[in-house]
Formats: sequence, structure tokens, C-alpha cells
Amino acid sequence: MNSPCTVSLDFRPDFSHPSAPQCAGRSLIAAIAQDAASGEVLMLGWMDEEAWNATLSTGEAHYFSRSRAKLWHKGERSGNVQKVRAIRLDCDADAVVLEVEQVGGAACHEGYRSCFFRRAELAPCAETGICCPRVFDPATVYQQGK
Amino acid sequence: MNSPCTVSLDFRPDFSHPSAPQCAGRSLIAAIAQDAASGEVLMLGWMDEEAWNATLSTGEAHYFSRSRAKLWHKGERSGNVQKVRAIRLDCDADAVVLEVEQVGGAACHEGYRSCFFRRAELAPCAETGICCPRVFDPATVYQQGK
Repeated sequence: MNSPCTVSLDFRPDFSHPSAPQCAGRSLIAAIAQDAASGEVLMLGWMDEEAWNATLSTGEAHYFSRSRAKLWHKGERSGNVQKVRAIRLDCDADAVVLEVEQVGGAACHEGYRSCFFRRAELAPCAETGICCPRVFDPATVYQQGK
Repeated sequence: MNSPCTVSLDFRPDFSHPSAPQCAGRSLIAAIAQDAASGEVLMLGWMDEEAWNATLSTGEAHYFSRSRAKLWHKGERSGNVQKVRAIRLDCDADAVVLEVEQVGGAACHEGYRSCFFRRAELAPCAETGICCPRVFDPATVYQQGK
């Protein structure tokens, strides 16, 4: 009974949303990766239709890399893939939340658990700092692929 | 001793990021509003520099409305403003997380607590549904402003 899981056809981002950011001829939606267990927001990526389809078919987060203008299987170099447990779709269907298990414990290419590692308290008063641990040393991890 | 709180000058989005989405001549960054208490992702909005400055100076979330192409004080019609407790900035400074207290309990213009009210489970198998409560009836709330 290992039939592939498919989401219903109406659960789908609107890749022709009139305000969708464009890159290399693609319409993009925003994809927020959130730790499925802790709720921490890990990163914001972008998806074109190909990345959406690849995410659904593999169960691992795929994004569209704007800097490289191509499909990006998150973790393809570092091994830190994101296993997608659930997806949430917003009211006007131009953004999704991916509830993920972050393999390796770090989403950020700088080695931090979350890309949002800088934090400023506004209330009661402003205080800025690093708010999450650095899990790996990027100089070590990324030199392996060179 | 009620001097205004200001964040440090280097804690600031990059409004000239080369991949920043453009709208009406403005460079935008993505702004994720997250419930400061529960961690639930409430909505994704966009900020230009004016919206960023207005958020800091008032302590309430301001966005740039792409559909109206102007500054949008979230909650200005419904009363459901977002009190910003902290801000997190990502590694390449083109996205922020706003940790907010959502006044009225609903961020979505459709009355749901979160704009991400539709959810599909991927593992172990796909199941889609509404994942958060509808807090208000938009037909009632928004007719007050007409």
C-alpha cells in the first residue's frame, strides 16, 4: 500500500498571480520554511511551478534559486535537505509555509540553524543580537564540493 | 526615561538587494508576521523602506500594499493591528520575521487567525483541510468602513 501521496488539485499556488515576482521568465511564489517541531522560521525561499512540483513529488523542499536562475534542491551540497511534513497555503495563494524537518539542524548557508539569526527586540527596548546557534562552519562544509 | 527605542543602524534590510521584487518603482523585501506567543506564521507581506521606517517608529506593522501601491498600516480598517515585539533579519537581508501580537486574534482579511489557513499533510499521506479558526466574519467587519 505504498501508493504515492498526492494533494488535491485545488491545493495549489497561483503561479499567475498578478503581483508575482518575476525572475528569468518565471512567476515566483514565496515559500517560508518553518521547523515542524519548534515552529521556528528557518528561511524564506522562492518557488516556480517546477520547484513546487519537485517538492510534492520528492517530499523534499525544492526552490528556484534567483541568483543561479535554476531549480535548487535545498541541501544538495551540504546534505541539509528539508523533509516536508505539511504545506500551508495562504488566502490569495501566492505564498506557502513548508513545515519541515531540517536534516543536519541548520538551514542557513552561514551555518546557523535559521537564516533569521539576527534579532532586534523592540519592546520594551531595542536590543540586537544573534538569536540562534551556529551549527556548522560553512568554510568546512562548502569546500567539500569545490 | 521614556526615550524612544531605536535599533542599531546595521540592523536593516537591504532595499537595494539585486533580486528584490519591484512594485511601483519600489524595491520590496518580504516580511513574515509570526505570532510572538504561539509561533504560528500569520501572513506574508511586503515592505518598502517607508513601511520599514513606519514599523520601527510606531511599533505596529506597516507593509507596502502591492495591489493599492501604497503604504498599508495593517489593521487600519479592521482594527486588527499587529504590535511588533521583535524583528528577525535573514542572512542576505532581504527578508524579515516580525514577531507580533495580533490584536483581535485574526490576521487574515478572510477572518481566519492566519492567512495560511489551508493545510495539506504530506507525510504519512496527503490530507487537506482548514487548519485554523475563523475569528471574524469579513462581511461584517469590512462593511463598517464602507
